[in-house]
Amino acid sequence: MILTVTLNAALDLTYEVDAIRTGQTHRVQRVQQRAGGKGLNVARVLHALGQPVLATGLVGGPTGAIILADLAAAGVPADLVEVSTDSRRTVAVVSTSDGDATMFTEPGDTLEAEDWQRFLRHYRHLASAARVVVLSGSLPPGLPEDSYAQLARLARDAGAHTILDSDGPPLTHGLAGRPDIVKPNAAELRAATGLDDPIEAAAALRTQGAGAVVASLGPAGLLAVTRDGTWRAAPPARIDGNPTGAGDAGVAALAAGALAGSPWPDRLREAVALSAATVAHPQAGSFDEPTYRLLLGQVQVTSHA
Amino acid sequence: MILTVTLNAALDLTYEVDAIRTGQTHRVQRVQQRAGGKGLNVARVLHALGQPVLATGLVGGPTGAIILADLAAAGVPADLVEVSTDSRRTVAVVSTSDGDATMFTEPGDTLEAEDWQRFLRHYRHLASAARVVVLSGSLPPGLPEDSYAQLARLARDAGAHTILDSDGPPLTHGLAGRPDIVKPNAAELRAATGLDDPIEAAAALRTQGAGAVVASLGPAGLLAVTRDGTWRAAPPARIDGNPTGAGDAGVAALAAGALAGSPWPDRLREAVALSAATVAHPQAGSFDEPTYRLLLGQVQVTSHA
Repeated sequence: MILTVTLNAALDLTYEVDAIRTGQTHRVQRVQQRAGGKGLNVARVLHALGQPVLATGLVGGPTGAIILADLAAAGVPADLVEVSTDSRRTVAVVSTSDGDATMFTEPGDTLEAEDWQRFLRHYRHLASAARVVVLSGSLPPGLPEDSYAQLARLARDAGAHTILDSDGPPLTHGLAGRPDIVKPNAAELRAATGLDDPIEAAAALRTQGAGAVVASLGPAGLLAVTRDGTWRAAPPARIDGNPTGAGDAGVAALAAGALAGSPWPDRLREAVALSAATVAHPQAGSFDEPTYRLLLGQVQVTSHA
Repeated sequence: MILTVTLNAALDLTYEVDAIRTGQTHRVQRVQQRAGGKGLNVARVLHALGQPVLATGLVGGPTGAIILADLAAAGVPADLVEVSTDSRRTVAVVSTSDGDATMFTEPGDTLEAEDWQRFLRHYRHLASAARVVVLSGSLPPGLPEDSYAQLARLARDAGAHTILDSDGPPLTHGLAGRPDIVKPNAAELRAATGLDDPIEAAAALRTQGAGAVVASLGPAGLLAVTRDGTWRAAPPARIDGNPTGAGDAGVAALAAGALAGSPWPDRLREAVALSAATVAHPQAGSFDEPTYRLLLGQVQVTSHA
């Protein structure tokens, strides 16, 4: 089973408006709301792929209740800890005239220490049944920056493979927990290491504790620096569309590949095809199945021996 | 008792950001949330004034639960009908660099006919105990445009004085219910009548059913066209600040004046002072008490005999 962890879950609201005019009042034409936070997105994709997945993390208050109801409606297996603080929201205002998205993300309430201790007990229990643990996204206020290191260590002690997808201090401090895979994008990789060359930067993260580094380079695909070798994997052509959630889809594919014990080139092929098929789907975070199957045979994987 | 009616209640979210940059992601620095919708704002002001008030209307779903919890925390007496659809939200993004507010208002879910029938029974019961009924704000999708006419008639039949503060079709169709006071602003007055001169426009609304018209002319104060005469009431100087909720404060003062049976010049003095004291308070919808008391003695009321 793949366990996805979302410590900073959110209710993602999408508002469609004609165009944003600052200082003005906009009647929103269409509202969509969905359980969000990167780990919940990964769980949704894994569930759509038919993979055995369980979503855990923290939710609370009336906004948390909406998140839980949405996960239940989508049929995503979930076992989250309910905390005393209200879950946060994000608002994406999409302009239908030019497709621009303007995002507002709430910081979230400060987590109570007692809620964190309750989560740790719950997590230990779930991690002991997991083969792969995915740690995704930002940390809620109140958690120490090395929280992902702590969770990665607990998962490793329980015998699980770990994937960390975060950025900033939660990523750099998380490396001490020796996650098997970290998945920064190009900007996060540069920010974490100060190095412009992605291969050098990935190598630097490995010396700091990452088993393998799989960096997403946007439309150029993925770079993987592992103990078994270095590869690049790219889609056959630039795919236009909505990139929201494409990174989470790539993480879902890497988790499924880790569960199956697939060779790296296969994992990367799956991850690139699934990311690109997510870009091709008009709804953020969903993937287009025919595109996914077509691209699986077309992704170019090249070794940098 | 003053009964305020809010058919399209909202959870009002205020997000503080440095500045809005369209197409970018903003980490919100500060989140405030409050029960909103014009009738709930009027009830909050009346409660702060020590007036006997009861807030009714429609709320539903998890967002409705947050609205009810906020009213309870503020101590505002409330007896709303819980409906099967979720209450809507509004998001005001305030730029701390220049004070600009950019608003996004959700349309809300379409009300079920059965929920409206339940509300009507509840409203009839409450209106029979009310001396003044305040009908404020927009209508949720699914309600006929003459809903305020229906509510005004029921209140009138129960012997209550009615105040209608809406705009567009809910205002123009509401006039058939012969509300005692309607309170458009200058733009709403022009839109409803096609007339530029506010005195002529107010007279036109009276011929269509309004007992009196009290028009808010922004910083210039109020214009009242009534069967007893025509008055203008203006603050002694332009008050700078946050005008959000100033109109609702004015309606609260008019409702208190109607309950007390005060002469028009006194009602207008109270309404202008309370509106201006709301502009002077940094928090939207709250009024500055010292400013209110000071202005009460300084508002200029002039008769257009």
